[in-house]
Amino acid sequence: MIDKNIIAEDYKNIQQNIVAALTDLDGGALFESEKWERPGGGGGNSMVIQNGNLIEKGGVNFSAVYGKLPDAVKKAFNTNQEEFFATGVSIVLHPHNPWVPIIHMNIRYFEMQGEGNETMRWFGGGIDVTPHYILKSEATEFHQTLKNVCDSYHPNFYPKFKTWADDYFFIKHRKETRGIGGIFYDRLTPESTEISWEEIFSFSKSVGNSFVPIYKNLVQNNRERHFTLEEKQWQFQRRSRYAEFNLVYDSGTKFGLETDGRIESILMSMPPMASWVYDYKAAPESLEYETLCLLKKGIDWV
Amino acid sequence: MIDKNIIAEDYKNIQQNIVAALTDLDGGALFESEKWERPGGGGGNSMVIQNGNLIEKGGVNFSAVYGKLPDAVKKAFNTNQEEFFATGVSIVLHPHNPWVPIIHMNIRYFEMQGEGNETMRWFGGGIDVTPHYILKSEATEFHQTLKNVCDSYHPNFYPKFKTWADDYFFIKHRKETRGIGGIFYDRLTPESTEISWEEIFSFSKSVGNSFVPIYKNLVQNNRERHFTLEEKQWQFQRRSRYAEFNLVYDSGTKFGLETDGRIESILMSMPPMASWVYDYKAAPESLEYETLCLLKKGIDWV
Repeated sequence: MIDKNIIAEDYKNIQQNIVAALTDLDGGALFESEKWERPGGGGGNSMVIQNGNLIEKGGVNFSAVYGKLPDAVKKAFNTNQEEFFATGVSIVLHPHNPWVPIIHMNIRYFEMQGEGNETMRWFGGGIDVTPHYILKSEATEFHQTLKNVCDSYHPNFYPKFKTWADDYFFIKHRKETRGIGGIFYDRLTPESTEISWEEIFSFSKSVGNSFVPIYKNLVQNNRERHFTLEEKQWQFQRRSRYAEFNLVYDSGTKFGLETDGRIESILMSMPPMASWVYDYKAAPESLEYETLCLLKKGIDWV
Repeated sequence: MIDKNIIAEDYKNIQQNIVAALTDLDGGALFESEKWERPGGGGGNSMVIQNGNLIEKGGVNFSAVYGKLPDAVKKAFNTNQEEFFATGVSIVLHPHNPWVPIIHMNIRYFEMQGEGNETMRWFGGGIDVTPHYILKSEATEFHQTLKNVCDSYHPNFYPKFKTWADDYFFIKHRKETRGIGGIFYDRLTPESTEISWEEIFSFSKSVGNSFVPIYKNLVQNNRERHFTLEEKQWQFQRRSRYAEFNLVYDSGTKFGLETDGRIESILMSMPPMASWVYDYKAAPESLEYETLCLLKKGIDWV
């Protein structure tokens, strides 16, 4: 098994590389770094950019925390393990331009142990995209890139993790997906994947390293695209659904709120501006209508 | 015991009186009515106003629903009752002017029954206020009015229900109250209050009928007050905390989301526009700072 400190170190490097690439890509604002310590053990580095050229608000968070397993988590995992270690990189970017999608990426490693018990460990993560306006060719390219990353590790990964993302990023009370999905995976072990720990770790880093080229691709054709006030207003409405998902369903957010984490890091994913319009109905055949029609599970983008 | 249909009828009249008074007070927009039916039994009337002179977005909802008790609710109440009836009026108003507070009012009656079991019933409700900027003299007047309403029924009501509101409208993850509180009460019965069902019902209607004079009072001095873009931006930030409370903690919202209620009625309380700024720090001695310092439990406003 790989040393957990090596995992944390590699993740931290991925964070730094992403921050450097995004700073370059944005060109208008710098990331601010807030290093924080967790009272129970460990800490992190929240790097946030606001009011850039491209990014209205975004965060690239790294953390490596450890200590006594909180009771809420013990209960959720139904375990009597006593200690845990968790490290990960987590990103959400809200762009200015409504033609550029919201993107989310997360890679994480978790382990827990207790006296007389075998250590339990797994990798989790994923990348998913929430367009304000769904552009089909870009959605296809995005999914194809993810499929390529997955296929080089296991032929089952993409179909399995794509379905998992559809199910996970689902806003039950609206009966709509958050966006066009992507991949989501959790509890990856050699037993659950048929590949070794080293390969799973390598897959995790490949997901992390695919983030910058994927985002560049989504950005390049649309960051300078003209938009109207009405399209910006639509972006605010789509962001309100993102806020609903994060506060009502997102496991990471729930875990953070329940375990008394650093609130500004947990909620850095929240949109800079969001709008709830009562009983909004998109005009038939409008672009807004088309997008709403595509917020469904099970679309085969590739 | 009062007939449940009389309770629903009186509540519906309270809704209509409030809508009429608010239409008059706003003077710029009309309420739109959406009558809806619940597949399992009953229905409601969601009355919503948007982009008025005074109110940016607000809803006055009435419902009377009944049927089979959903499993989620059975579990939450730890009961084997089979049938339920619930009626209530629920209001949230988001004003344009940041010097006018957000207000929330709810009165409700609930009963459940099952073969061979005694019918269980109770009243619940409350009024609370979330100023974007806390104005102390208005906070005092607001609480004094609530105290007067409570005192005419029982000397314990105001202190008990004021503390209950402080505890209920608390954003745990921010360690701050949603606003200046007010009163909150639940499961009122003759056993829990020392007053009769008739008096409890009358108290419930007094709370409902106090809404219009209370809101008029909060509005009259501030609806025309000049505000800056910075103050409007601050309003958006305060509203984001309101959104967090409603999506993470509010029992009514949770109940609605879990029981597959009419989503636009459940979430009509969500703000028309809200903003999440990363790691905002109010300048010391600013009005924003003063407001944040007053978002605490246990302030004796009267």
